[in-house]
Amino acid sequence: MRPGTSMLNAVTEEFAARLRATLPARSFCETDRNYLEEPRGNYRGQAGLVVAPGTVEEVAVIIRAASEARVPIVPYAGGTGLVGGQISPVGEPLPLVLSMRRMTAIRDVHPEENTIIAEAGVVLSEVQDAARAVDRIFPLSLASEGSARIGGLLGTNAGGINVLRYGGARELCLGLEAVLPSGTVWQDLKRLRKDNTGYDLKSLLVGSEGTLGVITAACLRLFPRPIAKGTALLTVRDPKAAVELVSLSGDIVGEGLSALELVSGTGLRFLAETMPQVRIPLSEPPDWLVLVDLGVSADRNPAKLLETLYARAHDAGIVTDGLLAQSEAQRAEFWSVRESIPEANRRVGAISSHDISLPLGSIPEFIARAGKVIAAIGDFRINCFGHLGDGNLHYNVFPQIGRIATAPATTGNAVRRAVHDLVSEMDGSISAEHGIGRLKVEDLERYGNSAKLEAMRAIKNALDPLGIMNPGAVLSFAGKT
Amino acid sequence: MRPGTSMLNAVTEEFAARLRATLPARSFCETDRNYLEEPRGNYRGQAGLVVAPGTVEEVAVIIRAASEARVPIVPYAGGTGLVGGQISPVGEPLPLVLSMRRMTAIRDVHPEENTIIAEAGVVLSEVQDAARAVDRIFPLSLASEGSARIGGLLGTNAGGINVLRYGGARELCLGLEAVLPSGTVWQDLKRLRKDNTGYDLKSLLVGSEGTLGVITAACLRLFPRPIAKGTALLTVRDPKAAVELVSLSGDIVGEGLSALELVSGTGLRFLAETMPQVRIPLSEPPDWLVLVDLGVSADRNPAKLLETLYARAHDAGIVTDGLLAQSEAQRAEFWSVRESIPEANRRVGAISSHDISLPLGSIPEFIARAGKVIAAIGDFRINCFGHLGDGNLHYNVFPQIGRIATAPATTGNAVRRAVHDLVSEMDGSISAEHGIGRLKVEDLERYGNSAKLEAMRAIKNALDPLGIMNPGAVLSFAGKT
Repeated sequence: MRPGTSMLNAVTEEFAARLRATLPARSFCETDRNYLEEPRGNYRGQAGLVVAPGTVEEVAVIIRAASEARVPIVPYAGGTGLVGGQISPVGEPLPLVLSMRRMTAIRDVHPEENTIIAEAGVVLSEVQDAARAVDRIFPLSLASEGSARIGGLLGTNAGGINVLRYGGARELCLGLEAVLPSGTVWQDLKRLRKDNTGYDLKSLLVGSEGTLGVITAACLRLFPRPIAKGTALLTVRDPKAAVELVSLSGDIVGEGLSALELVSGTGLRFLAETMPQVRIPLSEPPDWLVLVDLGVSADRNPAKLLETLYARAHDAGIVTDGLLAQSEAQRAEFWSVRESIPEANRRVGAISSHDISLPLGSIPEFIARAGKVIAAIGDFRINCFGHLGDGNLHYNVFPQIGRIATAPATTGNAVRRAVHDLVSEMDGSISAEHGIGRLKVEDLERYGNSAKLEAMRAIKNALDPLGIMNPGAVLSFAGKT
Repeated sequence: MRPGTSMLNAVTEEFAARLRATLPARSFCETDRNYLEEPRGNYRGQAGLVVAPGTVEEVAVIIRAASEARVPIVPYAGGTGLVGGQISPVGEPLPLVLSMRRMTAIRDVHPEENTIIAEAGVVLSEVQDAARAVDRIFPLSLASEGSARIGGLLGTNAGGINVLRYGGARELCLGLEAVLPSGTVWQDLKRLRKDNTGYDLKSLLVGSEGTLGVITAACLRLFPRPIAKGTALLTVRDPKAAVELVSLSGDIVGEGLSALELVSGTGLRFLAETMPQVRIPLSEPPDWLVLVDLGVSADRNPAKLLETLYARAHDAGIVTDGLLAQSEAQRAEFWSVRESIPEANRRVGAISSHDISLPLGSIPEFIARAGKVIAAIGDFRINCFGHLGDGNLHYNVFPQIGRIATAPATTGNAVRRAVHDLVSEMDGSISAEHGIGRLKVEDLERYGNSAKLEAMRAIKNALDPLGIMNPGAVLSFAGKT
């Protein structure tokens, strides 16, 4: 039996009534807009019932009820996912939406062991704050950190700007509390750095996008707070020089390198066009900029390290110009250039956006070849930016100035197909940090590894034989009524 | 159907003849002692046929043949595992032993992207050497690095002395080539730091101890080589002070802290008793020592960092004395104290050895309580040492001086039971870095999380429905003929 081939049932009045009789009234929410839309407007969603349990036991009650009735469950955390994993599209069996918004406790903080235990509904910035309050950091950091919640960040194995140094959500998670599709509570909030007792179920659930169970709490890693910080904006000749700068930064700064972000001239022009309030600290926007960010211990001088890096990179012909932040305010200004780019992109309006990664050494060739492939489709602007240090590019394609972004969907599809074909040919990933959700299910089937897909289907079927957990996300859904 | 409940067949002459007709003659090995013993002599093994394929395709041929004939397969890499995962005990269906010793190619090194691709039979020290040759490091480091092979290190998610800084085998692995129990080749040697295309099959196979497939090659992470190193031996008052030193080291050294190892006075006395050639650089062996090891960039002064750490720790009453290595030779001398302890243990002869981890903050209480629990069983010597920085202790129990280690097995079992009961009560792990193998299958069933075990069995059954892959390792074996 393939997962999802069993018949799923829509939420009915009777099912809802049964749940209402079991759970406290405060567990039931209005079906507000959030549950029906996703940030880029790619899906029109539906919800038969929105339930926000307050405890793991209540989550188990809900999952057992849904399992009995074969009702699909869509887990919902912050709703900031960019691939539609949190949205059940109209037309599929009407689901129960399982919102984590009432599970917002930080259960424990252990600064001396660098751990924190947070429930799935805690907003990322609140975990960051709780860490700071004990002179530690929680290094996961991304654009939506003010609204993304821990459950969703783990469910999608979120990345962001500090993966280079500290790893992504999976690597930052030590233990989980979750409810499996059978309704069994898996209580394993271990505060252990090393634990080899059996298969790595934690890593399997993290990144499974709610298709193998629902994460209700996690033990997360904290780190010592870097005492001194430094940020530079370096102008590089071309993408090849940018990649050389990554390697050179490792050699010179070694430990202490927190982020290496790529910014394109197109991105800077988008900022100037759509967000003039964001100051760009360069009179002549270059074609390529790299933001280098350090966070180091008290014995080190980040300004001196960045000066050394600049001098060595300049001598080697890698960088042509550079700015070193002279104050915390200027650091924030440099970062705001980088961090405003997604919003500028939204204002310009992309034809197609891609969250890809490539072997670091292949990035220059990819950028060159992708430009040609896209030029063959039409006359577009390309904003290629992102987490250069770990090979993760956001490669977004836009109409030319003056044209509006209402290119026929076929053009967007052609662009996406061309970009992903090339990524696949060059041994990259068509989803570096956003996940598969519903947006990339077909692409995963097209480009994904067939042996891996076979194993994924076997695992899905083994853990969720009825196919109730987030049906249609990650793996294709064959259970439409 | 539970995994393993199907009937497995012993290797027969006919089966062997069929394989001999398919594979080159050099693929077949003598059944030498290595394949039948494990380092601590805990198991008497058996092998119906030892095959050492040279390519992933040959591995697939073997697994398909075994699958068809329902012959059990025991994957074998360096044979250094300490929990019997590599040994089929006499009495079970006679297995095919799949040796990785002919898959010894380093296929590729990419210093500019910090990656290396090595086959499963490459010895760890060879990967370390290949990294050094391009001015990088591969940080996995453990006692058996001269003979342990990559396939086994990944299969068991090996740890060692640098997990604190760089992570264990799973975190050091970016991509895999493996053969799944169905005989399907999973070719996914991605050189990507970020890849969110579906479930984390890589993390599942790593640490599954050959029960879900056979790893044939891996893409591993390299790191910039630390330019300057520093090592200190610090005498601490007690385990509580040792744990405080971990936290203080993080605050002062931050990034750059490579290892924090605990050495006990008992361990030092064992060295003096059994290995007088190992020089202990202290006239009066203290009860507890911590070895602190730094590897830092060119801008830092490790000696100064260690002096600062010592001064601060001394002022706080955490350390009472300390030695700072003045040369590379002295660093080696300090490390040899720590690294000779397992051999000294072997010479003394343990009644029971334990590879455990605990939440860092609970270690002092654990050491105090475990000592009392063991004293209630009998008069023993305890050597508690290991990877303090990540909460991983090797807690080994020995007879008193003059008594020989032939305590009845029941005493050893009572000690193990008492230690593991306490570890479990205190939310620790009964296998921090060695894995479950065959030694700890019963303990995993006793102490393991039942929801996790249920999911593990479902996954095992989904990927290996015939139960041919390393039957009896990790999960209990119910298929004896």
